[in-house]
Amino acid sequence: MRSVLVVGTGLIGTSVALALRAADISVFLSDTDASAARLAAEMGAGVVFAGGGSVELAVLAVPPSAVAGTLSDLQARDAARFYTDVASVKQLPVSAAVAAGCDMTSYVPGHPLAGREKHGPAAARADLFLGRSWALCPGPSTSSEAVSCVTSLVSACGAVPVRTDPASHDRWVALISHAPHVVAAAMATRLEHADDAALSLAGQGLRDVTRIAAGDTVLWTQILSANAVAVASVLDAVAADLAQAARLLADGSGDKVAALLEGGQAGVARIPGKHGSAPAEFAVVQVVIRDQPGELSRLFAAAGAARVNIEDIRIEHSPGLPVGVAELSVRPAEAAALLSALDAGGWPTRHFS
Amino acid sequence: MRSVLVVGTGLIGTSVALALRAADISVFLSDTDASAARLAAEMGAGVVFAGGGSVELAVLAVPPSAVAGTLSDLQARDAARFYTDVASVKQLPVSAAVAAGCDMTSYVPGHPLAGREKHGPAAARADLFLGRSWALCPGPSTSSEAVSCVTSLVSACGAVPVRTDPASHDRWVALISHAPHVVAAAMATRLEHADDAALSLAGQGLRDVTRIAAGDTVLWTQILSANAVAVASVLDAVAADLAQAARLLADGSGDKVAALLEGGQAGVARIPGKHGSAPAEFAVVQVVIRDQPGELSRLFAAAGAARVNIEDIRIEHSPGLPVGVAELSVRPAEAAALLSALDAGGWPTRHFS
Repeated sequence: MRSVLVVGTGLIGTSVALALRAADISVFLSDTDASAARLAAEMGAGVVFAGGGSVELAVLAVPPSAVAGTLSDLQARDAARFYTDVASVKQLPVSAAVAAGCDMTSYVPGHPLAGREKHGPAAARADLFLGRSWALCPGPSTSSEAVSCVTSLVSACGAVPVRTDPASHDRWVALISHAPHVVAAAMATRLEHADDAALSLAGQGLRDVTRIAAGDTVLWTQILSANAVAVASVLDAVAADLAQAARLLADGSGDKVAALLEGGQAGVARIPGKHGSAPAEFAVVQVVIRDQPGELSRLFAAAGAARVNIEDIRIEHSPGLPVGVAELSVRPAEAAALLSALDAGGWPTRHFS
Repeated sequence: MRSVLVVGTGLIGTSVALALRAADISVFLSDTDASAARLAAEMGAGVVFAGGGSVELAVLAVPPSAVAGTLSDLQARDAARFYTDVASVKQLPVSAAVAAGCDMTSYVPGHPLAGREKHGPAAARADLFLGRSWALCPGPSTSSEAVSCVTSLVSACGAVPVRTDPASHDRWVALISHAPHVVAAAMATRLEHADDAALSLAGQGLRDVTRIAAGDTVLWTQILSANAVAVASVLDAVAADLAQAARLLADGSGDKVAALLEGGQAGVARIPGKHGSAPAEFAVVQVVIRDQPGELSRLFAAAGAARVNIEDIRIEHSPGLPVGVAELSVRPAEAAALLSALDAGGWPTRHFS
């Protein structure tokens, strides 16, 4: 893959372009908003497309409803040998492309499972897709060369290709992405007019449950509309469970809410860990750190000297206090070495497995 | 405060005890499950209570429905000068204590806003309350000495006391803690019987929305039952919004879901940042790191040498790839210094403000 045209330089398109540039592939950038394409180019994502010529692959990073029209236009002027898109739904663009008479042999519908709460080219990152799943939905007439080319794109972005069909894809993402977005929004909307005092008690749990509701409402409205039936079916089930829980609580039968909580616990346990396999079983070492320059440096130097690889770190700060707590995740076999290194360095530690 | 009796050595009781021991206060430990008290003692949380004597403060870290009976028993044998509890609801234990004829002058109802998905003494941490809010609900007859003693306890645990009344407390936590727990459970329960393939596409958003649903279902059933009316009212509103969203989507009026998404976005914006004030505005510097011992050490040494204080760090690993991405949060004024230090050290960086 030598040359790629990215059509639509928002968060996803620009991130794809940055990843391809990092792999030294020529990238041309195009957007209906010329300033977005220029900004992406200034970020190092490629050069603004001046028209003419033909690339090997065109990546359509446009809203779901614009995919088919854009594909049709590009194919009419023979802009690329192969085509893919990145829309969060797959049945709508595929059926619209068929209806528009697009050439389906050169088009591989795709969807990288990655995003941020921020949007636009300035929020783009070359590593956005690292380790993420990237769904590919080639149809019966898609050429194997097209699939191979788009699979190279996925690999160049550091993502993991997952082959499926548009209907399964849409049902799956309704469950694991689209419905959770609406659920987070429905919980967060209860906070809009809440007392400041109530919000001052908010902990990490509330922040986590509602975080994704900060996303782009215009884009999400379009995504939800384009996967309406599958999303509605999940939301109906969630709404029914919540209404029943409310009824049980109001009726003094709160003990019966246990069944829902147990279902939730079982559901969480089924989510794979962030390494994409079974939930990672790391040992956690907590260490109290002072909030000052050089403190983390000393700490990591001690860990490095002990030949311990920190797999993950989370820092909790303490308002009004000069200390924080760092949670260091390490392989269980390395926890003892880390603990003695930190103890020797004078840091208060605690260990959980 | 010289001596404290902790009654109930689960996650919260043992964490209080560990925090008090760190402040060199004598702690006695008691639990209906003797092995739990012994484990807490072995963790350094104090000594197992042998009966007899009187302490200055008793901390009742028992389930909400057990608070009044435990308080009554302790007061009958004059076990402490002052009493507090840590139950997640406040109206139930207070009214039960009044009904049981407890002395209300020496009792300060309390609730630390802290927790973990894990439970039991082994999950306890001395720093669990660092920087967290801790609600105190003294009544009209509570003595100022009792309030002062329990406020010292809160400070010794590193938490921030928030004075309120039981009814306001219960309404607030219904919104910011109890209802979100049920909402997370209702979303997570949809995953219990989902296709493995669907779950393989799961990203961070789904993990965050559902994380708290992993909590102790027995304890949460009791908490929800004890705050049933307030929780039911929030859940009813969330269920109604979700049912309406489902209806709009199913009816082809998905564009009208925008109003709910906008409400959610506005609600998220109202949650204070983790420093307890307005959401912190840090600059974020991303840096690509190799997954090997010493890499973070070198990186933090470079930041420390540049006199930059890393306020927060998040690491994303890449399955199957030898690199990860660290997101370093720093004060905006320090971002340039960090970037040049990292660039000089040869790390690929990117900067977001």
